[in-house]
This record gives sequence, structure tokens and C-alpha cells, in this order.
Amino acid sequence: MNTSATQKMDIQKVESSRIGQVDFDNLTFGSTFSDHMFECDYKDGAWQNPTIRPYGNLSISPGAKVFHYGQAVFEGMKAYKDDQGKIWLFRPEENFERINKSSKRMAIPEFPHDLFFEALTTLVKMDKEWVKSGLGNSLYIRPFVMATQVGVSASPSTDYKFMILTAPAQAYYTGDVKVIVADHYSRSANGGVGAAKAAGNYGAQFYPTNLAREKGFQQVIWTDDSEHKYLEEAGTMNVFFRINDTLLTAPVSDRILDGVTRKSVIDLAKHNNIDVDVRPVLVSELVEAAKNGSLKEIFGAGTAAVISPVSAFSHKDVVYELTKPEDSFSTRFKKELMDIQHNIGEDPYGWRFEVL
Amino acid sequence: MNTSATQKMDIQKVESSRIGQVDFDNLTFGSTFSDHMFECDYKDGAWQNPTIRPYGNLSISPGAKVFHYGQAVFEGMKAYKDDQGKIWLFRPEENFERINKSSKRMAIPEFPHDLFFEALTTLVKMDKEWVKSGLGNSLYIRPFVMATQVGVSASPSTDYKFMILTAPAQAYYTGDVKVIVADHYSRSANGGVGAAKAAGNYGAQFYPTNLAREKGFQQVIWTDDSEHKYLEEAGTMNVFFRINDTLLTAPVSDRILDGVTRKSVIDLAKHNNIDVDVRPVLVSELVEAAKNGSLKEIFGAGTAAVISPVSAFSHKDVVYELTKPEDSFSTRFKKELMDIQHNIGEDPYGWRFEVL
Repeated sequence: MNTSATQKMDIQKVESSRIGQVDFDNLTFGSTFSDHMFECDYKDGAWQNPTIRPYGNLSISPGAKVFHYGQAVFEGMKAYKDDQGKIWLFRPEENFERINKSSKRMAIPEFPHDLFFEALTTLVKMDKEWVKSGLGNSLYIRPFVMATQVGVSASPSTDYKFMILTAPAQAYYTGDVKVIVADHYSRSANGGVGAAKAAGNYGAQFYPTNLAREKGFQQVIWTDDSEHKYLEEAGTMNVFFRINDTLLTAPVSDRILDGVTRKSVIDLAKHNNIDVDVRPVLVSELVEAAKNGSLKEIFGAGTAAVISPVSAFSHKDVVYELTKPEDSFSTRFKKELMDIQHNIGEDPYGWRFEVL
Repeated sequence: MNTSATQKMDIQKVESSRIGQVDFDNLTFGSTFSDHMFECDYKDGAWQNPTIRPYGNLSISPGAKVFHYGQAVFEGMKAYKDDQGKIWLFRPEENFERINKSSKRMAIPEFPHDLFFEALTTLVKMDKEWVKSGLGNSLYIRPFVMATQVGVSASPSTDYKFMILTAPAQAYYTGDVKVIVADHYSRSANGGVGAAKAAGNYGAQFYPTNLAREKGFQQVIWTDDSEHKYLEEAGTMNVFFRINDTLLTAPVSDRILDGVTRKSVIDLAKHNNIDVDVRPVLVSELVEAAKNGSLKEIFGAGTAAVISPVSAFSHKDVVYELTKPEDSFSTRFKKELMDIQHNIGEDPYGWRFEVL
């Protein structure tokens, strides 16, 4: 299945770069794409024709299965440029492993390791001018796979397309995030696809998230679907709770994404001698801790925003406000993570991966 | 939002039909498309540019949200030609209402009623030669909506495309269907999107269905995700159980699709003075009834196969075989439904809708 040994990548460069037309000080996240993209098709039981070509439209049948059955998965990663002009990725092996885990759950063939890394590094090198230095700047990388067989019958596709798009991103300041703890809608089922970065998991959250936004909250913290008793994740990020000086987060499961930032935060916390308790966290514990003052912080962890401090949560229409403490864990983790990502700080964990 | 009053449909006919190249005796379901398709875009807050044009590829950005977030819904319907050459639809208002219900749950704008019917009937009339008469033959109709805004950030799309494809279909004989009752994987969560025909619901079932196929079973009967105690639906069809002379089926919920064939079967049964019990059905009841001989039939109900008799089910690796009784409900319902659909029998329910 590893086509990299047998098939040479076809590389088609842009005639002239679009980079001059881009205002790098006013980027909307994920909507401006770099000059090139990677594309590789699965047919006749093998990944073939790996190609880097200018970013542009696909010509695809409206009968392709991705449009009808949501057989699609993705990943989110970032490349960072340091002050010496070197370019780094953050734990890319984790994303590689996860996209194949997601693919397996969605009955999509796995993608070969070496070809993934060859595509990723070649693409980033070709578009290296699109990676801007400066803390918080990055090139957002979106590997994804979609079902391309033409046919409106509900069965796994025989054909797929693996792609990588890249999009320059600025420091992503979310502002203070206010969240609602879900007590009616749910993100995923036991035995469902919640642990996969499956496309449909995201579209399914838009409506309940819109309802939260109408009430002045930006995100939803999802809970278990049977009783809404346990805190799970926030859909685009995992969630951490600091009660007194202990950091709590839910264990990963078939409902919760195994976030790369999540596991990095756990390692950072342990390295900082902070008590980390990975266990099911009750909504009632959170409410109780908010009431008695032991709830110090809530924050989200994910690739896009790295760490997002939560300033308030709502549960059953009661709003609990949080004041960030002076010794904020979230501020410390965000700085330590970003310093590693941008090659400013030490990396005792071996998380940085040099591209160029 | 109803654009049909203000915008005339743009109709582009094929120069020459592909119909002569199609072997109507050897059709694979859903993979041969008729000459024309309908397309309508949502942008700037309105559905616009309704167009019927030759079936063909779309030119679409790989950054379109449908590929990344599965924000897409669909419907399945059929057109039938009777022996006088008249063409009929079956309860199309139900599909219209359901696609908008699905859209709402997936944060997709609803589609206008009159434009839906204008598009549907104009398209079927233009491709009327593709609808073959004969019991079981039909033109399968696939309305669907996809998110087309370009952007790899997880938020609802601003732009959408509504389309209708049609595909000639033969009598769909599934053979004897053997099913596995789910006891690990699940289809949907309480408060999730199971009641919507959301694209991702289907892709999510492919992997567990593959596991069932490897054991010699074609479909999975899904159960509730918390305890796998209650029988729900089979993913592409609703499920009925006949215990002695009573017909049982689960009530619709936010986990179970409100199937058009399902509700038609319930009406047919009542009209035939058959006791229908719409209530949560326990897996343990089914097993018990299979053991004591009171389980007479299991069948699926859905648009593609109309009625699919189940010849065996497996639960926790024990297989229970079923022998179709002489007075089979499924055979009777299938005949009555098909007679109505093909304008052979009386239609006391007002289900037929004349297109041409």
C-alpha cells in the first residue's frame, strides 16, 4: 500500500505566486489558501498518482459519495517559522496516526506513512514564504480524505481522494470564551464516531452551537448523551477544569477526540508538578466547585487556538463567571506550548519536527 | 425566501441523450444518472439561479465546507410509470417536509416549497423516457443539499447548493436479508442527528456494517447506545417485528428516521385491521419471541427496496432463523404499496401524486 516507493510525486508549480495579493495582517482563519495543494487518489485498491499542483477547484461528480454519505475525515496541524527562518511542525506523527484511526472507523483505507510525510514536508517547503514568523503566526495544514466513487447507494466508496491544503493563520485570539454545558443536544453516541475526526461530527454541532450563540455563548461543552451528567469535550477542543490546584479532564473514549494539544497539556502539567486527574468529570462537581469558589479555571485545548480560557459557563440557564487567577495554568501552558512550537523554548519532550 | 415567484428556472437541455447507451436490464442501483440535473445556489441569504442542466461534474473548491464538516442532507424518492404511460410520485410532500427538517437540524437554510416541486416535476418530465414502466421499475430521485462556502473553520456555511439527481432503478431484489442486532457500535445519540437524513449518519455505519458482512449478515439493526436494549432502525430502513399477529415498531425519536415507507406500512396495517403497536421494542422480547415461536416476521421498510423481509437475525453471536409464514404481512404490504405506487391498485390514502 505504500506507494511512495513505487510512484514518484508529480509536482506542478504555480506560474506566479498569489502571495503578493494576500494581506497577512488581516487573515480570516482557514479561508486563504497557499499556492499549492497535495492530491492523491485511491482506486483499484491502491493510493496512486500523488501530485502537488496549484491550489484550485476540483472537477467532481455530484454523485460522489462524500456529498451523500459524509464518508470523510480530516486533520488539523500547524507549521511555524522561527526567527532563524527554520520551519517546524508540532508532533506530526500524532496527526498521521489519528487520521488513519479516523479513516478506519469511517471504512476509509489508511494512507501510507512515508507518503504522508513526503507530501507534507514537500508542500510546506514549496510554500515556505507563506509561513510567517512571529509568535502566534503559522501555516494551518489541513489533510483530509473524501469518498469519490460515484453512486447514490449507501455503501462504502471504492475510490477516495486524500488531499492537503494549507492556509496562513494569524495569532488566533478568541477573546473570552463563554460556554454552555449541554443538557439536551449531544455530540456523539457510545459506539459512535465521536473519537474520529469524521466530517459529520462537526456539521452536527452547528445547530446547537447556533442556539448557544443566540444566548451569547460561543461554544458548547458536550456531555454524555444519556444523562448529561459528565463533561466531555467542546467539539473543536478538549476541555480542562482546574479545581483548587488539580487539573481535571475527561479520559478519551469512543465519544471523545484524542486531542494532540490535550495530551501535550497533560504532559506539560505533569512536568510542572501539577496534579492531573484524568477521570470522568461530573457536571455537578463543576457547578459545586463554581459555587464554593474552588473552581479556578476552565480552558479548551486544540490546534487552532492552542489554549482558550473560558470566562463563564452556563448550566440550566444559570451562568457562572470565572476570574482568571494570577497563577493561571492556561496562561502558563499556552506560553510553554507556543514557545516549543515556535522554537523559542526548550523541547524536553521531542515534540518539534524540523521541516526546513 | 421563495425564489420561484421571482426567478425563472434556467433550462439547458442536452444536445443528445445518453439513454441509448444504457442497459436498463442491468442497472446497478444509484450509479447511472439520467440526462439532466437540477441545481440551485444559496448565497447572500437567498436561494437563487435555479437551473436544470445536463448531468455533469461540479467545479468546486477542495476547501468547500461539505468536504470538511459534513454539512449535508439528502432525500430518496421514486417516480413510477404506469401502463398508460402516466408518471407518479409517492407522497412527495413527506420528502419535502423531511429535507427541510433535516436541513434545520444541520443549520442549513430551508428550501422553498414551490421551487422544490417545480424543480422535481420539470426534471422528471424532461427525463420521462428514463422512467420505465413495469412493476418494480422506477426513477430513483435524490434531492440533496451541501455546504459550499470555502473555509476550513468549523462554523456553518454561508453558501449552499441544492441539487436533484435522478437515476433509473430496476426492481430491487435484496435477496433474503440477514441482520445483526447491534450490541457494541451505535448509529446515533440522544439529542444527536439520527432523525435527520444527514450525510454523516450513513458514512458512520459503513465500518460496523462491514464487520457484519464479514460474518455473513447484510445489515445491522441499531439499538439504543446506552444499553443496547431497545431495537431502533436499520440505517437505510425502519424495522417492523410481527409477534403472533401484532405488528411492532419503535416510535420515531431524535435517534430514528421518520420513514415515509414506515408510516405508510402503519397505515396499511391499520386499514387491514392488523394490530399495530408503536412502542419501544426490547431486544429481549425479540429473542424470547424467536425462542418461543411467536416471532413470525421481521422486515425493513424504506424507499429503495420498499419492503425487505429478514430471514435471520443474530444477537450476541446466536443466530435465530425465520421462516416466512403463508399469510406474510411483508408480502402483503409490499404488494399493496407497489400497486399504489405503480397505479395498479386503489389509493384510498391519497398517496399518489401525478407528474405527467
